[in-house]
Amino acid sequence: MPISDTVNTQIILTSRPVGIPQVEHFERTESAIPKPGEGQFLVRNRYISIDPAMRGWANTAKNYSEPVALGTVMRAVTAGDVIASRHPDFSVGDRAVGTFGLQEYAVDDGTKLRFKVPDLGGADVPLSTFLGVLGSTGITAYCGLMFIGEPKPGDCVVVSTAAGAVGSVAGQIAKLHGCRTVGLTGSDEKVSICLDTFGYDAAINYKTAELDAALSEACPEGVDIYFDNTAGPISDAVYKKLAIGARSIICGTASVAVWSPPPDGPRIERTLLVSRARFQGLYTFDYKDRWPEVQSQLCRWYLEGKLNHRVEIHEGIDVATAAIQRLYSGENLGKLMIRI
Amino acid sequence: MPISDTVNTQIILTSRPVGIPQVEHFERTESAIPKPGEGQFLVRNRYISIDPAMRGWANTAKNYSEPVALGTVMRAVTAGDVIASRHPDFSVGDRAVGTFGLQEYAVDDGTKLRFKVPDLGGADVPLSTFLGVLGSTGITAYCGLMFIGEPKPGDCVVVSTAAGAVGSVAGQIAKLHGCRTVGLTGSDEKVSICLDTFGYDAAINYKTAELDAALSEACPEGVDIYFDNTAGPISDAVYKKLAIGARSIICGTASVAVWSPPPDGPRIERTLLVSRARFQGLYTFDYKDRWPEVQSQLCRWYLEGKLNHRVEIHEGIDVATAAIQRLYSGENLGKLMIRI
Repeated sequence: MPISDTVNTQIILTSRPVGIPQVEHFERTESAIPKPGEGQFLVRNRYISIDPAMRGWANTAKNYSEPVALGTVMRAVTAGDVIASRHPDFSVGDRAVGTFGLQEYAVDDGTKLRFKVPDLGGADVPLSTFLGVLGSTGITAYCGLMFIGEPKPGDCVVVSTAAGAVGSVAGQIAKLHGCRTVGLTGSDEKVSICLDTFGYDAAINYKTAELDAALSEACPEGVDIYFDNTAGPISDAVYKKLAIGARSIICGTASVAVWSPPPDGPRIERTLLVSRARFQGLYTFDYKDRWPEVQSQLCRWYLEGKLNHRVEIHEGIDVATAAIQRLYSGENLGKLMIRI
Repeated sequence: MPISDTVNTQIILTSRPVGIPQVEHFERTESAIPKPGEGQFLVRNRYISIDPAMRGWANTAKNYSEPVALGTVMRAVTAGDVIASRHPDFSVGDRAVGTFGLQEYAVDDGTKLRFKVPDLGGADVPLSTFLGVLGSTGITAYCGLMFIGEPKPGDCVVVSTAAGAVGSVAGQIAKLHGCRTVGLTGSDEKVSICLDTFGYDAAINYKTAELDAALSEACPEGVDIYFDNTAGPISDAVYKKLAIGARSIICGTASVAVWSPPPDGPRIERTLLVSRARFQGLYTFDYKDRWPEVQSQLCRWYLEGKLNHRVEIHEGIDVATAAIQRLYSGENLGKLMIRI
């Protein structure tokens, strides 16, 4: 359906999923394009990021942020153009990334902003990149790996959802720091992507490999850092291989569909104790004061050609909710987003 | 049985327990008192510490240290007198704490030493104290609480096995740092000890209380630090109350009898993620370079009357193996040790 220039197409959360949001939990609606009041600016969204966090936003379980209220626009991180402004810090032509929602247009006073898209000296970097490797997913990977994982040269770093938007950046940053990198992923195609595009030293298809044996082979001296985006049985296998002093960055729990209540799995306290391991949950916003330096470093690597990335861009706001389902199916082959 | 002055009575590990060592896994034997060679000293053990670590030492599962070989003296931490020395750093009359084993006499070249008992300016401090609050258990509590827990005034600190040798020191140090302290323990008698002797702000009998509700009442703003000596269902209840940024010190896993393989329990990754909690296994030896300063601080507090402690001392090496069983029954009311 073509974009209207007079109405604001929006995707509304209409019912509460248990677990992963499905198409039927949303409805499309249209409203008037909002006008920025004093101290506000108007953004025309161009790209909508499809993120694992959307599950938590749509559910009511305890989470980072308040759940999205039923009957309101689904929360989403987007990148767009400022097309009108009554805010002193924003001008028409600025590009902004923020939680501007699953809709075409949004007004904001700056509270939904994540960052203004930086000027990279005229380099031609697509706006979509700032929803991925130079945006939240890259920043998340950097903060988790560097501030929690504290990689040292020679460390063995295992990444789950290794070809994913966050995992692929974590793997590459670990490699840039002299680590041995081992990727866990869910198809042979993604194994190839891990090896060829993201430079992992080894990659394992956890769906077909005998995971315990494959990990032992890939990590003969144990796992020093586990960058975990899945939890569940994949993580159980990694936990058995933790080296003394291991660090586990708990960044996501994608392999477990329903956490309320938590499913059972092998207790890990003894593993933590014997390995003197440190497990820590990652919330990127806890490092918000460091985002500018982190983003600058990511941009430097990117412009030097040291950070590969993949995007899978679907067309049109109407496919957004199907894309959320697709994200959890693990079928996407790059940072998933919608162009509108 | 009286101590002989001509033979060395020893307790030998003769079979491998599954889980908690029992009396039948050991045998008493006698051998000649060893003579120190060049570079060695001879210790007459006076007190033998009965520690949760003994389970791990007697089993074969992956652990901090090598399992005790069958047919050899059971590993134990002891405090004793140096009664002969051909080692330049040790003199007759020195008092030493080390893993000198479940026996009357031991020779060592310093590799089994944990520390020489410091001179506290002539203060009359019983030697047994250096197996407890001024020794490994106090040092363990300090290292875990301070270096992993990083307490801040006003933090809510929950301690499991709160009246125990490690837990009671952790609770008191937390209180000295301005924290609110909540003890979990297994009898009403120990609840009273927690409140009256160790100064907890609240104490809960986890065997009789409705633990979820009791924790909510005792920790209305959530748990900032969990000093965990139990794991298992007690910990599951605490995990539900973790505050944002919580730290969990995994010091022991006493409530789970068999860890090989680990029993199932609720998966905790989502809790870690949402709370941005940090869980870390504690191994006191990782902080060995800081032991002197830690022990000095503990001694200062002790001499100032700020650290209460309880000991339960049994008489005679023949009751040592029964004491190990007793430790896991939770019936002891203080740091458990044997005087020989």
